[in-house]
Amino acid sequence: MGTVTPYGYSESPMVGYAKNRDVVLARLKRIEGQVRGIARMVEQDRYCIDVLDQLSAATRALQAVALELLNDHLANCVADAVKEGPSAGNEKLREASAAIARLVKS
Amino acid sequence: MGTVTPYGYSESPMVGYAKNRDVVLARLKRIEGQVRGIARMVEQDRYCIDVLDQLSAATRALQAVALELLNDHLANCVADAVKEGPSAGNEKLREASAAIARLVKS
Amino acid sequence: MGTVTPYGYSESPMVGYAKNRDVVLARLKRIEGQVRGIARMVEQDRYCIDVLDQLSAATRALQAVALELLNDHLANCVADAVKEGPSAGNEKLREASAAIARLVKS
Amino acid sequence: MGTVTPYGYSESPMVGYAKNRDVVLARLKRIEGQVRGIARMVEQDRYCIDVLDQLSAATRALQAVALELLNDHLANCVADAVKEGPSAGNEKLREASAAIARLVKS
Repeated sequence: MGTVTPYGYSESPMVGYAKNRDVVLARLKRIEGQVRGIARMVEQDRYCIDVLDQLSAATRALQAVALELLNDHLANCVADAVKEGPSAGNEKLREASAAIARLVKS
Repeated sequence: MGTVTPYGYSESPMVGYAKNRDVVLARLKRIEGQVRGIARMVEQDRYCIDVLDQLSAATRALQAVALELLNDHLANCVADAVKEGPSAGNEKLREASAAIARLVKS
Repeated sequence: MGTVTPYGYSESPMVGYAKNRDVVLARLKRIEGQVRGIARMVEQDRYCIDVLDQLSAATRALQAVALELLNDHLANCVADAVKEGPSAGNEKLREASAAIARLVKS
Repeated sequence: MGTVTPYGYSESPMVGYAKNRDVVLARLKRIEGQVRGIARMVEQDRYCIDVLDQLSAATRALQAVALELLNDHLANCVADAVKEGPSAGNEKLREASAAIARLVKS
C-alpha cells in the first residue's frame, strides 16, 4: 500500500508482514513448486490418492502462510490502529474479523 | 499408475481422473499462477487483507480440485473395486475414507 | 429411511450406520453435553480463549461423527447401489460427492 | 475471569463477549437442540445424507459462534491489552493467534 509522504511513497507502514516478507515469499515459492509438482503427478497418471495427499499438503501450506500474514497484520496494522483511537481501531478490527471468517470458511 | 499390458502401459485404468485430466491440469496451472500472483503482491507490499483474500481464494481453488479428483476416484477406482469383490472394495473404501478425513481436516 | 416390505417398514436396509448406531448416538450425546458445558462456561464469564478452545473441540467432534457416518454410507449404501448397477450407483455417488463437498466446506 | 474490586468480583472486564452474552447463550442453546435433533434422526434411522447435512449445519453454527467470540475478544480483551502496552499487548496477540490457528484447523 504505502502512504504518500513528503518523500513519495513510504516504506509501506501499513504492511504488517514487512519484517517477514522474505520468509513469506520463500514459502509462497515453495507452494508454487508444490502445485507444479501436483500438475506433473497428474500428467504422469499418478494414483488419485497420492495426488489428493499432495493437494491436502499444499492446502495446509497455504493456510499456514495465511495465518502468518494474519498474525503480522493483527500485531502491526490492527494494533497500530487501536492505539491511534477507537475509530481507526474499530474499522481495522471489523476488517480483520471479516478476513478471519473467510479464512475459517476456506 | 497404469498396468502393464501386452502393448506396454495401459491408459491407466486405475486413474480415476483419466477423463478429466485436461480440466484438472488447466485448473492446477491456474492455481500455480494464482500463487505466483500472491508472491508478486507480497513483493509489491500490497495490503495484508488483500493478500489474505487471494490466499483464501487459492485455498478454495485447491480444495475444489481435490473434491473433483475425489469424486472421480470414488466413481471409478472405488466403484470398480467394489464390483470386483468385498476384499478389493473394502480396501479401496478404507483408503478413500482416510483421504476424505485428511481433506476435511486440511 | 426404511423400505416397505411385506412386513411393513424394514430395518432400514439403506441406513449405512445401522451397525454403528449406538456408537454414533453415544458420541452425539457427548457432544450435546460439550455444547451445554460451553453454555455454562459463558454463563460463568469464563475467559474467551478457554471458551473458544472448547468450541474448536466440539467442532472437531462433530466432524469426526460426520466422517464416521460418511464412511458407513460409502461402505454400505453407495457400495450396494454400485453393485446394483450404473444408474443406481451413479445417483448415489453424485449424492455422496455433494455431501462430501458440504463437509469439506463446513 | 473477573477482577476483585471493592465490591467483589467485577462484571468481568476481561470477558470480551460480555455485551453479547445473551446472544451467544441463545445460539449455543439452539446448537444444543440441533445436536439433540441429530441424535433423534439417528434413533429414527433417518437417511445418512440427511443426517450428514444436519451435522454440517451444526458445525457451521458452532464456527459462527466461535467467530463471534473471537471478534469480541479481539475488539475488547486484545484491544485493551494493546492500549495497556507492548508487553500485555503482545501476550494477548500471541494467545489470540494460537486460538485463530486452532479455529482454522478445526
